[in-house]
Amino acid sequence: MPDSDSDSSGDLNVLSEDPLCAGVFLSNLDVPVSPTEGHFIRSHFPAPQINSADWSLPITGDVETPINLRYHDLLKMPSHEVVSLMECAGNSRSTMQPPAEGVQWDNGAVSVSRWKGVSVKTVLEQASLKSVATDVLFEGVDTGTEPHSGGPLRYAMSVPIEKLLDPDTLLAYEMNGETLPKDHGYPIRLLVPGWYGMASVKWLSNITVMDHPNGGFHEMDYCIYPATDGKADAKVKRVTSLKVKSLISTPTKGSFVTPGSHKIKGVAWSGDGHITKVEISTDDNRTWRPAKLEQPCGSYSWQHWEYDWEAASLGHSLLRSRATDSKGNVQPMLAQWNFRGYQVNSIHSVPITVRKD
Amino acid sequence: MPDSDSDSSGDLNVLSEDPLCAGVFLSNLDVPVSPTEGHFIRSHFPAPQINSADWSLPITGDVETPINLRYHDLLKMPSHEVVSLMECAGNSRSTMQPPAEGVQWDNGAVSVSRWKGVSVKTVLEQASLKSVATDVLFEGVDTGTEPHSGGPLRYAMSVPIEKLLDPDTLLAYEMNGETLPKDHGYPIRLLVPGWYGMASVKWLSNITVMDHPNGGFHEMDYCIYPATDGKADAKVKRVTSLKVKSLISTPTKGSFVTPGSHKIKGVAWSGDGHITKVEISTDDNRTWRPAKLEQPCGSYSWQHWEYDWEAASLGHSLLRSRATDSKGNVQPMLAQWNFRGYQVNSIHSVPITVRKD
Repeated sequence: MPDSDSDSSGDLNVLSEDPLCAGVFLSNLDVPVSPTEGHFIRSHFPAPQINSADWSLPITGDVETPINLRYHDLLKMPSHEVVSLMECAGNSRSTMQPPAEGVQWDNGAVSVSRWKGVSVKTVLEQASLKSVATDVLFEGVDTGTEPHSGGPLRYAMSVPIEKLLDPDTLLAYEMNGETLPKDHGYPIRLLVPGWYGMASVKWLSNITVMDHPNGGFHEMDYCIYPATDGKADAKVKRVTSLKVKSLISTPTKGSFVTPGSHKIKGVAWSGDGHITKVEISTDDNRTWRPAKLEQPCGSYSWQHWEYDWEAASLGHSLLRSRATDSKGNVQPMLAQWNFRGYQVNSIHSVPITVRKD
Repeated sequence: MPDSDSDSSGDLNVLSEDPLCAGVFLSNLDVPVSPTEGHFIRSHFPAPQINSADWSLPITGDVETPINLRYHDLLKMPSHEVVSLMECAGNSRSTMQPPAEGVQWDNGAVSVSRWKGVSVKTVLEQASLKSVATDVLFEGVDTGTEPHSGGPLRYAMSVPIEKLLDPDTLLAYEMNGETLPKDHGYPIRLLVPGWYGMASVKWLSNITVMDHPNGGFHEMDYCIYPATDGKADAKVKRVTSLKVKSLISTPTKGSFVTPGSHKIKGVAWSGDGHITKVEISTDDNRTWRPAKLEQPCGSYSWQHWEYDWEAASLGHSLLRSRATDSKGNVQPMLAQWNFRGYQVNSIHSVPITVRKD
């Protein structure tokens, strides 16, 4: 089995080299599935070099039958595919005011892939959960220090059993029909569709079934620490499912367009239901008109939309898109401020200029 | 007369070396008048080295009596002093969403000085304005190229006569009782109190009385190009008087404070009237309570305020201040977006953390 060692950052906007953090260009969102080399990358630590022949994945803890899966075992098990969007919890962080520390993502930490692997459910059934089991800890091989971590640690995150019983939650070994690239978690990564990307642990080393959420550095870091209300300590909540959001892919910010007819295009998604409406404003938030939704690409994917715009007035325009999902969630003008800058789903605003050629 | 050549950027946050752009640290705002070496600096071009003995200032154009003032002449004329706030039109640009090109000021391009010089009115009376005169062009010695300027040019700006007849509008030669430093326009700069700083042309070389606004590169650049409304071209307006604004100086962003009593302090100002109210929110915009206004420091200066805060809940807090002026202008949550990122007076939000020692 070949190790995947290709540089997968070719079509990306690199924000950090080591660990590699690289986002997509929004003009590349207009595809059903992102090309593998154009899928955003968010690593916490340098990508480990793993030889799949030497690698195995023990599943231990609150199980009746601890097992140790080798790479070949997984490839022979019943496979499952899902087209799933992945978005980094810190995507659009740089647009939050006041700003938060962390990777200063613009809006490019979002992509869609066709993932193939084994349902986590299948593996957990094989190991046979004890009745006390509530959460499962996924640890990566990758190791390093984080700001304020006080020492080296491995990337790790626990996920509630309930989410793991969704057959679309995978131990993934393929991305768009090819072996998982090194930067995306070779040989095996977790894929938790509908959740922010922090849960989709790469380079899996261990799976431990537990009777409680693990906590731990990354799990406590990927939390919403809101502004307190001055009366009681605000509730800290884990970052889990994707907030409703949309992005404009065409035109891109700073574009010059001529007066006349143009198509405004983009994508929208939500982890809490499907997209029911995308509205567009071209007049600085005064009026909103519905965009045309295209056929959905799957329940965990994005939804493309387009809007016919007649650019009548010369000068600067702000194009905005606002998505609504089937639970009635609507993108806000300003996302809720939080200390770590997660879940930023403020309405996307794209400044462009209309001018004659 | 000594040339002023000292490095005046000691206590500043330098954003650009040449030309020098440097802002204040907000913790230094808690003074009636900023120390000269702590006054923000915004230069468009490298600061010229001028020998005041060789320098003179011709006043020509639509005047009955063209004159040519030498430095010594100005020092002998009746002098006038004003304590005036100066704010760069691009201050807080980095907090505007979507962002605009230009110097990425945080909130530090604001300071107060005690300025001394000759009222422009006095000089214009000496030259005797023709009846057609409406505007006066002030040109600097400083020369260079700007992005999109298409070639070298001098910094220049015209100001309507009406504003120049205010005796507080000065040809300034002293700052806080000392000779104007090189970085602040030695030997003579214009001071237009109540307006954004772009009008206070440094290193004056020429004054030309005109029967129309001059236009020109900088005058057209310092304009509000709003988002058009999709129906008619939006009105382009020059940047002139200061928008109502407040800043929190204590605590500073990212501070840790212990539970208990704290003073929140800051400044507020407006170019359109005096400050009548500053309100503070410590509970993420749910409630606002009045701060205590101190004695004003003069009609063109800032107004200090303070607020007694009982930090009761542990965790992250967002402190916000919101000023209202005597014309009823109130700081908005989001300033009006404009293409160049000027006049950003959005409510200042300061994230801090309450924790036990």
